[in-house]
Amino acid sequence: MKTFNIAIIGCGNVGGGTAKILQEAARELKKRAGGKEIKIKKIITLHPRRQAGRYGLPIELFCSCKEEISALQSDAFIKEALKDPEIDLIIETIGGSSGRIHNLHKSILKSGKHLVTANKAVLAKHGSSIFDYAKKQKKSVGFEGAVCGAIPLIKVVQDSFTGDLINSVAGIVNGTSNFILSRMSDKGAGFGEALKLAQKLGYAELDPSMDINGTDAANKLKILIQLIYGIPATEQGFEVKGITNVSKEDFMVAKSLNSTIKLIAFAKKEGGKVYACVQPAVISKQDYLYNVNGATNAIKLDAKYSGGHLFVGQGAGSIETGSAVVSDVVFIAKHGYIKDITQSAGPVKHSLADFNLYPASYLLIIKTKDTPGVIGAVGTAIGDVGVNIENVAQSIISGDGWYLPVEVSKCAAKQLDKAVALIKKRKPKLIEEYKYIPIFK
Amino acid sequence: MKTFNIAIIGCGNVGGGTAKILQEAARELKKRAGGKEIKIKKIITLHPRRQAGRYGLPIELFCSCKEEISALQSDAFIKEALKDPEIDLIIETIGGSSGRIHNLHKSILKSGKHLVTANKAVLAKHGSSIFDYAKKQKKSVGFEGAVCGAIPLIKVVQDSFTGDLINSVAGIVNGTSNFILSRMSDKGAGFGEALKLAQKLGYAELDPSMDINGTDAANKLKILIQLIYGIPATEQGFEVKGITNVSKEDFMVAKSLNSTIKLIAFAKKEGGKVYACVQPAVISKQDYLYNVNGATNAIKLDAKYSGGHLFVGQGAGSIETGSAVVSDVVFIAKHGYIKDITQSAGPVKHSLADFNLYPASYLLIIKTKDTPGVIGAVGTAIGDVGVNIENVAQSIISGDGWYLPVEVSKCAAKQLDKAVALIKKRKPKLIEEYKYIPIFK
Repeated sequence: MKTFNIAIIGCGNVGGGTAKILQEAARELKKRAGGKEIKIKKIITLHPRRQAGRYGLPIELFCSCKEEISALQSDAFIKEALKDPEIDLIIETIGGSSGRIHNLHKSILKSGKHLVTANKAVLAKHGSSIFDYAKKQKKSVGFEGAVCGAIPLIKVVQDSFTGDLINSVAGIVNGTSNFILSRMSDKGAGFGEALKLAQKLGYAELDPSMDINGTDAANKLKILIQLIYGIPATEQGFEVKGITNVSKEDFMVAKSLNSTIKLIAFAKKEGGKVYACVQPAVISKQDYLYNVNGATNAIKLDAKYSGGHLFVGQGAGSIETGSAVVSDVVFIAKHGYIKDITQSAGPVKHSLADFNLYPASYLLIIKTKDTPGVIGAVGTAIGDVGVNIENVAQSIISGDGWYLPVEVSKCAAKQLDKAVALIKKRKPKLIEEYKYIPIFK
Repeated sequence: MKTFNIAIIGCGNVGGGTAKILQEAARELKKRAGGKEIKIKKIITLHPRRQAGRYGLPIELFCSCKEEISALQSDAFIKEALKDPEIDLIIETIGGSSGRIHNLHKSILKSGKHLVTANKAVLAKHGSSIFDYAKKQKKSVGFEGAVCGAIPLIKVVQDSFTGDLINSVAGIVNGTSNFILSRMSDKGAGFGEALKLAQKLGYAELDPSMDINGTDAANKLKILIQLIYGIPATEQGFEVKGITNVSKEDFMVAKSLNSTIKLIAFAKKEGGKVYACVQPAVISKQDYLYNVNGATNAIKLDAKYSGGHLFVGQGAGSIETGSAVVSDVVFIAKHGYIKDITQSAGPVKHSLADFNLYPASYLLIIKTKDTPGVIGAVGTAIGDVGVNIENVAQSIISGDGWYLPVEVSKCAAKQLDKAVALIKKRKPKLIEEYKYIPIFK
């Protein structure tokens, strides 16, 4: 039977893990691919020798056996691969969301090859254009590795929830921020201290901004919303809050309520509108997400007919994400292009609504002074904007501040802004700072 | 675009839920099926009017609008459906593992129609013969609803773990027995009492034997083992213990060790051999499975490259299982027959080994008397057969018995039998009864 030839462009963390599995499990993969031998014809990377050593790969698989090659040489190798009629599929694992990468994706499909990538940034930035182009070219795009690493969420949404209507999705989808928040929760560390440790241990990159400002989580959520609700990623503007403003005191308050704080990616359909956000949220001890730590990702999914689901697995890692990339390669090697597989679960178009209007329960934390009348003033103001208070817990004292925790029933964030404005009008000044964090149950 | 016509044979719990979704979500399903309208052409059941009422379905969809029809009439309707060239797919939701059902499956495929079923019993009994026959006929067999209801485990194993090698699978896959054990654990109820309540609340059938003797769980495990390890269900003989012998005292002992007892379906590959069993096992409070109650199913899956995974969802229920059946229908309506999709993850053939030889940790519970020397005798005998003791906990006193809990390190069950034989030789008699329960971590 015919060999199924592939090229890998970019042999870093994910590309290296992918190549390693393709080499090591070749015999099993052949059987799974209906007897087709999946063969790496070429790995293109700027550092062939170093990456061959790092991932235990034969140097013969690489575009060159030199120590390193120039960007110009790499481009020439890519052009050669695109022209090679023997290559059936190209894996892009360079990463980044530049126009250059998007153009590479198009060139791969234009040259009549299938595309597999784990690059969430470029898929989120360029929306559905690459999926549409693939359909036109009758080629497949595999991107299982782009969302939550090894958790098979993409195929599950595409092919398994087709007999159902997904109401909501909520979960922990970024390992770096999760590591930092776990550390702050467990050890009472401040944000800066926890970040430094994460960098030291390799959980955070030197420039961790994409992870800690929520962009990485938002990219994954955009891809999911596109699949589930059919809203192209480019048309999605939702609120993204990172974890940089989560304080030691927030954790002290959360802990006093038998809860912790996690960065949550959230989307929920209500009445034709989809409310979405990425932001730190209060998670109670009873919730499975409470105990999810480090690189583990966990997604809760609620569907109209089948009810609640939970998917947990490794959200990052070279070999873990590599296994998801390889599953795409095997699927395409076996089935070829089987019609528009990218969009099976997201046909009915919805529109995105402002999360600040979504009725969520909130934990309002008010930094105040131990003055008589504070609770009365806060309670009155919240009542005046028509919001019910569930619980006023004991204040937490930290440094020079008193932090008053107020749990409120479902309301729009905008109502809380109004309540705080009312309290701020009072003399003497009662509020020094405040924040509210959604409580996801 | 062409209509995709289906017939449903059997309109009970699962068939009714399936039909309801197909009717209610017709618009969304059409888009997901690539524009093909999925139309119920005929529902065949012995009680058309009653079932139409129960599931809110138009009587016109049924084979007849009479109160009930005879088995002979039903057979005639089935024959008619098999001959109808307009019908593309037939859903079998009669249930049961009789030769008649197996023959019906073959007739459906022989008549050139795709088959979808949630019938685990017949698939486990007849092994891979129906999959092989479907391949020959170039027709698809969908059976997502057969294992763990709404959890999309079948497609996940078939298509998502193809880039990996699954080491082990372990989980709670039977809601009835799980309800009974949860009740015994929470309320200290005896088995009989908990079973009666389960029957009263509709969690257990009048004849609950398939659920409580482990057969239902074993059927699901057989299908999974076939997919994962390529061992035909008919060639699988593994130990199946139900929950009828789990006692109040077992729960008292487990509780004293911060654990509980759950019926676990388990399979693990080690050195080319697959060890499998269905039996009650000790599950600690730290384990996610500890808190899984009622009809919820939970499966832990461990794979070579991607590590640990957890899948949780509703394992039973009319509409929940129906959603899994419908996902198969949509997939087939959209893609038709796309080569042997039934076996993608199970190509390398393994063989099944005796679980009694598998090195597991065990909780040994010895019913004894408060006699001096018991712990010494037990400890000596266990040491004599080469097994390490992890912990000897405090005895539980219940009725006239003393129950001594001994946790031992990984060993084969056969070694424990030898140890007990050694203790039994002693005079005076020290052991009245004993049992050992694997500890799954």
